[in-house]
Amino acid sequence: MTVELISVGTELLMGNIVNTNTQYLAEKCALLGLSLYYQSVVGDNRERLGETLRTALDRSDIVILTGGLGPTEDDLTKETCAEVLGMPLVEDKRTHERIENYLKSNNFAVITENNWKQALVPEGAIILDNDNGTAPGLVLEKEGKTAILLPGPPNEMIPIFRKQVYPYLNHRQPELIRSKMIKVCSLGESVIEDKLLDLIDAQTNPTIATYAKTGEVHIRVTARAESEEAAKKLLSPVVKEIKSRLGNYVYSTKEHETLEMVVVDLLKKYDLTVTTAESCTGGLIAGRLVNVPGASDVFHSGFVTYTNKAKRKFLDVSKSTLKQYGAVSEQTVREMAIGGVFATESDACIAVTGIAGPGGATDDKPVGLVYIATYMKDKVNVEEYHFQGSRAKIREQSVVKALDLLRRSILENYG
Amino acid sequence: MTVELISVGTELLMGNIVNTNTQYLAEKCALLGLSLYYQSVVGDNRERLGETLRTALDRSDIVILTGGLGPTEDDLTKETCAEVLGMPLVEDKRTHERIENYLKSNNFAVITENNWKQALVPEGAIILDNDNGTAPGLVLEKEGKTAILLPGPPNEMIPIFRKQVYPYLNHRQPELIRSKMIKVCSLGESVIEDKLLDLIDAQTNPTIATYAKTGEVHIRVTARAESEEAAKKLLSPVVKEIKSRLGNYVYSTKEHETLEMVVVDLLKKYDLTVTTAESCTGGLIAGRLVNVPGASDVFHSGFVTYTNKAKRKFLDVSKSTLKQYGAVSEQTVREMAIGGVFATESDACIAVTGIAGPGGATDDKPVGLVYIATYMKDKVNVEEYHFQGSRAKIREQSVVKALDLLRRSILENYG
Repeated sequence: MTVELISVGTELLMGNIVNTNTQYLAEKCALLGLSLYYQSVVGDNRERLGETLRTALDRSDIVILTGGLGPTEDDLTKETCAEVLGMPLVEDKRTHERIENYLKSNNFAVITENNWKQALVPEGAIILDNDNGTAPGLVLEKEGKTAILLPGPPNEMIPIFRKQVYPYLNHRQPELIRSKMIKVCSLGESVIEDKLLDLIDAQTNPTIATYAKTGEVHIRVTARAESEEAAKKLLSPVVKEIKSRLGNYVYSTKEHETLEMVVVDLLKKYDLTVTTAESCTGGLIAGRLVNVPGASDVFHSGFVTYTNKAKRKFLDVSKSTLKQYGAVSEQTVREMAIGGVFATESDACIAVTGIAGPGGATDDKPVGLVYIATYMKDKVNVEEYHFQGSRAKIREQSVVKALDLLRRSILENYG
Repeated sequence: MTVELISVGTELLMGNIVNTNTQYLAEKCALLGLSLYYQSVVGDNRERLGETLRTALDRSDIVILTGGLGPTEDDLTKETCAEVLGMPLVEDKRTHERIENYLKSNNFAVITENNWKQALVPEGAIILDNDNGTAPGLVLEKEGKTAILLPGPPNEMIPIFRKQVYPYLNHRQPELIRSKMIKVCSLGESVIEDKLLDLIDAQTNPTIATYAKTGEVHIRVTARAESEEAAKKLLSPVVKEIKSRLGNYVYSTKEHETLEMVVVDLLKKYDLTVTTAESCTGGLIAGRLVNVPGASDVFHSGFVTYTNKAKRKFLDVSKSTLKQYGAVSEQTVREMAIGGVFATESDACIAVTGIAGPGGATDDKPVGLVYIATYMKDKVNVEEYHFQGSRAKIREQSVVKALDLLRRSILENYG
């Protein structure tokens, strides 16, 4: 079965935003064993979208469209699909109510007439409720072809896809495809490929694919089989072999488990509390920990100490350390980690200080120099990194490495 | 003049990597005033690439292809373009030498036979030297149509584009395009469109387009003109009219200015320092402020106080307030904001407490209930929100509204 992606949006054609939806959907389609040969982007234009959709429906079984479902006049993905497939638009009462409730509970003072445009659906469509916005997702089936319409914002698109479209496509795909994800931190993609080269070269079923993420690499092992049991039999030995080759760098083998979930789980397991002492990351490590529902069991408070004065006042970093070694140094990050534990009476602290740029570099301290430390059980672990890229990229990488150092320190001290 | 982008690579179809080249090229084409109506992605497949290229050359004046110029057998973008345009491949001596020098100076031990494949170019092509890799870029002109072939890796593609393709395209494009961005917070997209409906309906030149972002809406006004002055004359009255209709909700009219940049600039302008006191947002407001290089002038330290105990210890929220009204209440957020200022001797504080879910709701306090407060000049401003969506979405919206309340409070108290 073939699938094709069409992203709709003038903001994509203008380069206002990066098209991340396509990568998400392409990865999921591969996971489902669907063959994807074409992706297109078109603007909010009835004629060009219509032409693109006709071409796509001609050559592929399923077309997934994202974007252009908003309430404004430019948004015409639904109208164009309805026209191309010859399905008239009718009002869906349940969607009308859902939109009304959504807008009311989000304190929209005025519900304007154009909001109700989103309650119109092509007759006979399967409606996919949207928990995070007003536009519903839609599945249109006609003469053996399928168009799936999803909202453009990833925080609306992804939950609809995961909960409603994935099961729908899985059901339509007769072949059984099962995969296992192995998530790795603190090892580069080429090092991983090197370690797994013979396995990758020999792959047929299961296949092995690596996906580079910020500071992480995800390895997907995928098998095609006739039964759950046969799939498991194909996957297990390969997954086991990869895990044994990569050791402690593997932080998870669960599809939806994030690095912060693993960290929070480990803290809970060993009944520990942690605090954060952040300089260049400026709250983002705390922000990641709080991503996990129930993080309050292990994370009570954290500090952003962005200036020397703040590091001294809240973390008791000594004036002489700051003067002698500077704010971005092994010595300072060490004192930050220890100070965090004492200020909060937590069991552990993760501390970060670095130069995210573009300013702040000196001859011996370039942009991208970052120190990360953990303190627990009277023991400090410090790591020094030299990251490349933009300010944002350096900070993102620092957050991932910090969470991973925390994970590895807990395993080392309590595991 | 119309331009179209084709990205070539099976790794894009599989979702192994995000396609960032497209955004870069799309933005630059917009800046050049080229009309870009289509972007496509195809795999390293001669038939499908050929078909996609033919369609693109049919409907667009210029086609920019990225990827598939490597030395291996899968790479066949150049071969396919040469075939479609009917230009035979011939060896280019200068490129042969450049490749040889590049490989030698990059310490490649073995130069394999397939490396020389990259010295073959379609006869009559303009050759674009690549300083960061072996594959040259190519410009193929035939019968009024142009194909521009660029290597896929961004660190090779971007320098070639910037130094050689941009001047080439700029020279070919006679028309001037200029646009202005108007960024709005705390007003929904449909409310904005309602307020601007007559302007949007009447648009021809300049055009008006709205883009919804989390908690924000961006409005782009674009004019085509013969001179800078004429473009300005077209844009100014429309931008002025939109600004006057949306008033204080407009936070910026600069292309690359973010909400946090505006907040940091306002703090600098009035010589103020701010601290953050975060519960459910867990450091993300601080993280946004630190996005701005030089934020340390106005932001010295911040707190994540995730538990009642932490709110009492670091922000001096009273035990009785927490007991009587609860951690998620107007009274608590008010004391958090005041406590933040006193703990840090800052001039202002932005405080947030809320229920991000999925747990933590009670009968009278649902998931999504968020209180935001600012304290400055002895004055507290509190806002109550009822957000919907996932934990992540509720937190993201809280961050944007908090930054915007801070912005509005500064304007109210100091503006």
